[in-house]
Amino acid sequence: MSVPKLWTETIDAHRAAVRDAAMDAMAALVAKHGLVAVTMSQIAEQAGIGRATLYKYFPDAQAVLTAWHERQIATHLDQLAAAVDPAAPAIARLEAALNTYARLQHHSARHHGGELAAHLHGSGHVHHAQQELRSFVRDLIAEAVRDGDLRDDVAADELANYCLHALAAAGTVPQDAVQRLVTVTLAGMGARPR
Amino acid sequence: MSVPKLWTETIDAHRAAVRDAAMDAMAALVAKHGLVAVTMSQIAEQAGIGRATLYKYFPDAQAVLTAWHERQIATHLDQLAAAVDPAAPAIARLEAALNTYARLQHHSARHHGGELAAHLHGSGHVHHAQQELRSFVRDLIAEAVRDGDLRDDVAADELANYCLHALAAAGTVPQDAVQRLVTVTLAGMGARPR
Repeated sequence: MSVPKLWTETIDAHRAAVRDAAMDAMAALVAKHGLVAVTMSQIAEQAGIGRATLYKYFPDAQAVLTAWHERQIATHLDQLAAAVDPAAPAIARLEAALNTYARLQHHSARHHGGELAAHLHGSGHVHHAQQELRSFVRDLIAEAVRDGDLRDDVAADELANYCLHALAAAGTVPQDAVQRLVTVTLAGMGARPR
Repeated sequence: MSVPKLWTETIDAHRAAVRDAAMDAMAALVAKHGLVAVTMSQIAEQAGIGRATLYKYFPDAQAVLTAWHERQIATHLDQLAAAVDPAAPAIARLEAALNTYARLQHHSARHHGGELAAHLHGSGHVHHAQQELRSFVRDLIAEAVRDGDLRDDVAADELANYCLHALAAAGTVPQDAVQRLVTVTLAGMGARPR
């Protein structure tokens, strides 16, 4: 479709491109120097934009980092939702989602993003996207508990938190161990082996 | 005992004090500004030492961070070992160690150290102390597997990695949820409820 773009759409696209460039720069710099060394000047240089421009989009380097992580989790959440067959029982949907999450953790740890995410994990700087991910998993767990397929002596929200932490281990194990990690994690929640 | 100190001992003590001051400064700065903002100059100022002195002990801010984390884990490992009754069966020693680890994660997350450790967790910058901690847990698991108290279809090292990741969740939950997290984590490894 070649719809002529409105001026505001062009502006929005430009803004998104600048924001994305800043976030990519941050990820690249952290991969190269480690988190500690990253400054707004470095991000601007790496992104190929002026410092003044960068400051129009982000107040500081921490904000770039947070935005990058939000973007990362939002992408993962889309992939989790896509992995789930809406017609399947909750326990099967949960297994599919957790398998996908573990594989994403495994693969992103093999790129610079993984290290960055590991730095950020549980740091309190990530709120919205992390909360959405946890709600998605929590709701699947709650449904599977109602179906009698998971333990009911621990709240679904606590189990979701346990899950996401346990599956973060997927970033540190060889490929063939990822499935075993998911099985062990599910067993903790009282899932019967399938 | 008032043994007169040798000159080399005095020097060693001084070196250790400078290193500790740098690490404490790093932890305080991260708590205040987030990881990204920390520079060698800030660490020196916060520690009350000259930049030139600081550079004699650490090549860069990342090295201070790594040393701090090593020190943190070594302290935790001592507390884990102390929590274990050598006469108890392996599964009971494992439970005691994991309970202690979860409580340490919970408490340190409530101080600046927790956030720092969360940033570092799984980042690949920590090697020796983290490896020692994992070996300690792995050996307890292997013994409990031999006793028939834990599942034997997943290697002890993979289970130890799962454990330490799952229990990192203790840093993000209320106090009364810590024990439930340990129970769920143990159940993943096939431990029978006690």
